[in-house]
Amino acid sequence: MTDIARMAGVSASTVSRALSGSPLIPEATRTRITELARSLNYRVNAGAASLRKGDVQTIGVVLLSDSAQMISDPFLLGILGSLTDAVNEQGMNLLLSRLHEDSKDRMRSMVESGQVTGLIVIGQLTLHEHLNELAHLGIPMAVWGAALPDASYPVVGSDNRLGGYLATRHLIEQGCRRIAFFGDTTHPEAGQRFQGHAQAMEEAGIELDPRLRQHFLFGDARLRESIDGWLNQQLDFDAIFACSDVTAISLMGALRERNIAVPAQVRVVGYDDILLASHVHPPLTTVRQPIAQAGRALVDLMFESVAGAARRNIVLPTELIVRESSL
Amino acid sequence: MTDIARMAGVSASTVSRALSGSPLIPEATRTRITELARSLNYRVNAGAASLRKGDVQTIGVVLLSDSAQMISDPFLLGILGSLTDAVNEQGMNLLLSRLHEDSKDRMRSMVESGQVTGLIVIGQLTLHEHLNELAHLGIPMAVWGAALPDASYPVVGSDNRLGGYLATRHLIEQGCRRIAFFGDTTHPEAGQRFQGHAQAMEEAGIELDPRLRQHFLFGDARLRESIDGWLNQQLDFDAIFACSDVTAISLMGALRERNIAVPAQVRVVGYDDILLASHVHPPLTTVRQPIAQAGRALVDLMFESVAGAARRNIVLPTELIVRESSL
Repeated sequence: MTDIARMAGVSASTVSRALSGSPLIPEATRTRITELARSLNYRVNAGAASLRKGDVQTIGVVLLSDSAQMISDPFLLGILGSLTDAVNEQGMNLLLSRLHEDSKDRMRSMVESGQVTGLIVIGQLTLHEHLNELAHLGIPMAVWGAALPDASYPVVGSDNRLGGYLATRHLIEQGCRRIAFFGDTTHPEAGQRFQGHAQAMEEAGIELDPRLRQHFLFGDARLRESIDGWLNQQLDFDAIFACSDVTAISLMGALRERNIAVPAQVRVVGYDDILLASHVHPPLTTVRQPIAQAGRALVDLMFESVAGAARRNIVLPTELIVRESSL
Repeated sequence: MTDIARMAGVSASTVSRALSGSPLIPEATRTRITELARSLNYRVNAGAASLRKGDVQTIGVVLLSDSAQMISDPFLLGILGSLTDAVNEQGMNLLLSRLHEDSKDRMRSMVESGQVTGLIVIGQLTLHEHLNELAHLGIPMAVWGAALPDASYPVVGSDNRLGGYLATRHLIEQGCRRIAFFGDTTHPEAGQRFQGHAQAMEEAGIELDPRLRQHFLFGDARLRESIDGWLNQQLDFDAIFACSDVTAISLMGALRERNIAVPAQVRVVGYDDILLASHVHPPLTTVRQPIAQAGRALVDLMFESVAGAARRNIVLPTELIVRESSL
């Protein structure tokens, strides 16, 4: 490290901070020092040690999110719980970071500085292109989310298209035709769920009505406000497929306040199968994502990525759990 | 490290594993190597670097739990989200471990090996005595939970006794007299909430009926089964105070299935104020624990502990949020 400091004309502590990606060091300096370290084939600190055979490995887990979502979304936090178990079971360390889209460069420096062996990213958000770039740079990683056709990084997730299809076909089989879709389709997972929804509608010869499509963000802090705004339009609908259980449960509360009976007047299906889905009244029909399997699958793919194995995805079993809210 | 290996008569990689607390190394060997390293004033890996002034610090976050709880409890996972933000904001690293009671020795070795600067522990469970021992050994730490009178470690939490008192007094003011208490009082937080509950009952001259006390574990996987078992006794009650929102929401579902109207026939109050508390129907009256403030408070106390400052607790504002379930 002293060599790099001398060559870069900075202090050793600046080198250390730059290599650990500290925001205290200007971007240009960080880049210069990182390049220099790479040219000297230099790796520093925890990760460096962990890369030597036999030592404890450290896995970087990155929660990509807007600030409202992570505090509140029980599903994504459940994935983190599952991942913590999977990493700990293998005797490895888990270094947790929550990053916003604008601090995405930290992901690269975490690996290049040797701080972590590889990354497990929870939440793609709109960072698909950036994740592709990281994969092309050879950053070992695995991502929880939707398997997009042009992804260069390994993905673990449910079959979102199938989930959307199963939910909607079930509602059609219950006699529904005016089925609203609640979800933000700019989000890769919700986008695929919408494709499945649209396919089921098309197969049944039902035309999509754009007014029945509500663009919720996952974990929107103003969730209830958005729901009320949509309901106030008094559109004609007989079912709602919501892209998360939190949205579906909130929706059922809003419907009951308006004396709209679920499922008698409006059938509701959610997505995720969080703990409370089976406990609310009526119990919520939903598409289950198997949280307990997610952690291990992510760790497996990350290690395949470290080993340079051919990239592959793991699609977890995707199952419609029928409860009273849709019957 | 080579010196220690030679002196201990083991390989360098065994020393490395022992100092990082690897379960692969027998307990006796680990202890011997740790003592030896301590006598040589030796610290190894990430934490060692982070202890040098100016470098990035690594904080160990330990989730103490039975396996069912962490995947599912939205409140504890919310605390973790808040903590991740607080640690990241200060440019520090967060090393996450989930430990069961029987692997509690890992906590000590994480610090003594220099892997982390100090510990933040989420969930006391029944480990109060062990946490006291760690504090006496000088392990820097802060704990989320209940401030017990003989605690030697700093605690962040809500005022559980006040919370229990406010919830019960509110129900009494609504005219309730047969108030059931749902919570596992061997858990320090629930124990203090019960004390507050008992105090409010006593002030109102209402005798506690032991049949109206149900010992739920937080996050019990068989939550609904336990609720149904209790309800099947057909006891006489006009209100329920539950020690978590998850329990309260599940309870409201069970009551509605039995055509018992909330709040008309039975008033319900929860604890935590999780995201869904305001979204269910009827919206849930609950005692709010301010998650967003928890992370920063835990980090502050942990650093005071590192600096050797006098031990103190932080009691977060504890507020009754009145919604329809109790009116």
